[in-house]
Amino acid sequence: MTKVVKFGGSSLASAEQFKKVKDIITAEDSRRFVVPSAPGKRFSADTKVTDMLYGCYDLAAKGKDFTKEFDAIKERYNGIISELGLDMSLENEFNVIKACFIGKAGRDYAASRGEFLNGMVLANYLGYNFIDAADVIFFDERGQFDAKRTNKVLSERLEGLDNAVVPGFYGSMPNDTIKTFSRGGSDITGSIVAAAVNADLYENWTDTSGFLTTDPRIVKDPAPITTITYKELRELSYMGASVFHEDAIFPVRKAGIAINIKNTNAPEAPGTLIVESTSQKPAYTITGIAGKKGFTVINIEKDMMNAELGFGRRVLEVFEKNGVSFEHMPSGIDTMSVIVTQEEFADKEQEILAGLHRNCHPDMIEIETDLALIAVVGRAMKANRGTAGRIFSALAHSHVNVKMIDQGSSELNVIIGVSESDFETAVKSIYDIFVETKL
Amino acid sequence: MTKVVKFGGSSLASAEQFKKVKDIITAEDSRRFVVPSAPGKRFSADTKVTDMLYGCYDLAAKGKDFTKEFDAIKERYNGIISELGLDMSLENEFNVIKACFIGKAGRDYAASRGEFLNGMVLANYLGYNFIDAADVIFFDERGQFDAKRTNKVLSERLEGLDNAVVPGFYGSMPNDTIKTFSRGGSDITGSIVAAAVNADLYENWTDTSGFLTTDPRIVKDPAPITTITYKELRELSYMGASVFHEDAIFPVRKAGIAINIKNTNAPEAPGTLIVESTSQKPAYTITGIAGKKGFTVINIEKDMMNAELGFGRRVLEVFEKNGVSFEHMPSGIDTMSVIVTQEEFADKEQEILAGLHRNCHPDMIEIETDLALIAVVGRAMKANRGTAGRIFSALAHSHVNVKMIDQGSSELNVIIGVSESDFETAVKSIYDIFVETKL
Repeated sequence: MTKVVKFGGSSLASAEQFKKVKDIITAEDSRRFVVPSAPGKRFSADTKVTDMLYGCYDLAAKGKDFTKEFDAIKERYNGIISELGLDMSLENEFNVIKACFIGKAGRDYAASRGEFLNGMVLANYLGYNFIDAADVIFFDERGQFDAKRTNKVLSERLEGLDNAVVPGFYGSMPNDTIKTFSRGGSDITGSIVAAAVNADLYENWTDTSGFLTTDPRIVKDPAPITTITYKELRELSYMGASVFHEDAIFPVRKAGIAINIKNTNAPEAPGTLIVESTSQKPAYTITGIAGKKGFTVINIEKDMMNAELGFGRRVLEVFEKNGVSFEHMPSGIDTMSVIVTQEEFADKEQEILAGLHRNCHPDMIEIETDLALIAVVGRAMKANRGTAGRIFSALAHSHVNVKMIDQGSSELNVIIGVSESDFETAVKSIYDIFVETKL
Repeated sequence: MTKVVKFGGSSLASAEQFKKVKDIITAEDSRRFVVPSAPGKRFSADTKVTDMLYGCYDLAAKGKDFTKEFDAIKERYNGIISELGLDMSLENEFNVIKACFIGKAGRDYAASRGEFLNGMVLANYLGYNFIDAADVIFFDERGQFDAKRTNKVLSERLEGLDNAVVPGFYGSMPNDTIKTFSRGGSDITGSIVAAAVNADLYENWTDTSGFLTTDPRIVKDPAPITTITYKELRELSYMGASVFHEDAIFPVRKAGIAINIKNTNAPEAPGTLIVESTSQKPAYTITGIAGKKGFTVINIEKDMMNAELGFGRRVLEVFEKNGVSFEHMPSGIDTMSVIVTQEEFADKEQEILAGLHRNCHPDMIEIETDLALIAVVGRAMKANRGTAGRIFSALAHSHVNVKMIDQGSSELNVIIGVSESDFETAVKSIYDIFVETKL
């Protein structure tokens, strides 16, 4: 059995955290391949090493002195090394980095050093092999991740090894310069490594015990999600739920490898298992509730609209020509509502209205702003008769006016439109009915 | 005050019915303009005069003898005339009609004679002026109703008159031949006359006391609808509810004239008032429930669909190119359901599937047939919080699985998709919750 274990910044922020990480890794022989982030915050006012590196580099790029700032970074690593009692020095690496900063090796290079150095420390601490990600993770000429080349080189390189630490977040361009993934990209590295070694599981260790049923800013201590499918996760994260790097899903999903989100500070908690599909019944009828504010509805009325072949297509064409994508398009008879994000629509409003009048000759167009959309997501909804009844009864009970409903025949989710002012109440009342009262 | 009163075939099927009609008309001075249909059925095995005329003409057109059949028609009218004790004879008219049948004056001409003769009898009985619809209702060269010319001639002709009977159902072409509206077209004539005289009300007398909240074949003795807006009516009739000639709505609606559906056999009943808009609160939260079977859903899944500008438009384009119009298009995240009528889709199924694959590259397409759609319609739904909750709780209680929900932000109706086998149960349970228990 082989597991790839990725640790986030807060899991590796201090020597104390490093000890927890080692305990976790040594607890199972299968945890052979490790992907670390750079040291994160130790306390809420602390600065992440990645941000310290960006700050230093920006000074260097302007030709300013950055000695003090660079020393602070050195201190972070040296502190960890000495507290762990490691027999190693990063002085050579620090000197190279400093020189490269002055030589303008690039912001991506600068940022990547956080993971690079942390990887060296962790490898030494664990007694694992260290592999520079620049040698095994590749981007193509256009800066896109080169999955094919990476997978070939990486799997060959790791095949003979019992263990390895591969720093997250970065790789190299065809011209050997360093390029990083977008922020949070160590999740992607972990996923790529898991796919390359055909891991049985990709453990993603962070500082929460997995995903929560809904936003903790709306509902206090929401129940954790024990198992979620990729599809459900995608739906919840599209609608604003936190937060697993979307690009990090594709490599493992394609390889059929499950992801386990775990908590470094509570390793006994089961966390959340992300899977392609599962026969496991979820604890509640719904898997999660997520939502976003900031939508606008364009209501279009036209007599006999349903009898007019091509009407819907012509409506959507107007939005498309103005570069505005629609989120949903619920329709009645002779009425059609197009839902878009306020942000995209605002700039193009008058062009779109003019286009609709010209293209579709509606009887009436009405615009309503400040709409919030809520997605209630759950693979168990299809089998549980009455889910819709419970949702809408709960909303009625909480005096929430339902402005829009959209449920396709996949029955994996229901999308509900409410006023922004009703958003929190609506989420809370749906949560209560399914999770609190377990109705 | 001026009312236009239209009487359907069953209201004028016999001398006894003629008496009721006269009582109704003479009860109010305002009932000045009368539009009659041809005599309908007197009992369920009876034949409508219009059908007798079609039968006769078909014999005549084939050169066969139709004396016996024509005599039966004469008997219907002569019976009414003698029972009412009228001092009139239609012998001249009968002879002309017979000659024109032999001379192949056309099926429309034949059918129209039912209203023509009934109008003469009714005018004589009421002591009203008789105006042949051929002189005042016009079609254009392409056979389309010529609203402009008709309105001008008709309003001028009726302006100087205290009263008139204008037979329903037909008018004339530019070459003087007779053309009828589609079956049930006397409703249209009534509406045209009402618009031409700027009537205060268009009374449409039939054999039911107005529209019913739902289909009496599904729910026994459903509650009548007292007031309905044109929009609600259009929505219910689009979804299969009986039954007011759609083209009959436009002339009066445009002129702001309300329609009152009344019962000749129970004139004291208020019937149904069809209006443009009203402050009158309906008796129930919902105005009506209607539905149809025979729909197919095409479920389309594609990762990141929402991020793909133009995806929805390309989907609809495939249907449009195959001449299939979509009814609804509810969407989730990464899923989209296109609902079409089974009938239209069946012939084009493979072309559409191939087109979708070529045009949209979906991850998965799934087809589900035998879907019924139910429209719950009501102008009061918007103001009544919890309507959706009540609908879906009622459906859950009746073990109906809800396959699709579509509610746009007009909040005038909710469209619900269920299995055809659940259709009647679903309609009944929605009716019960809103009308029976008045919840």
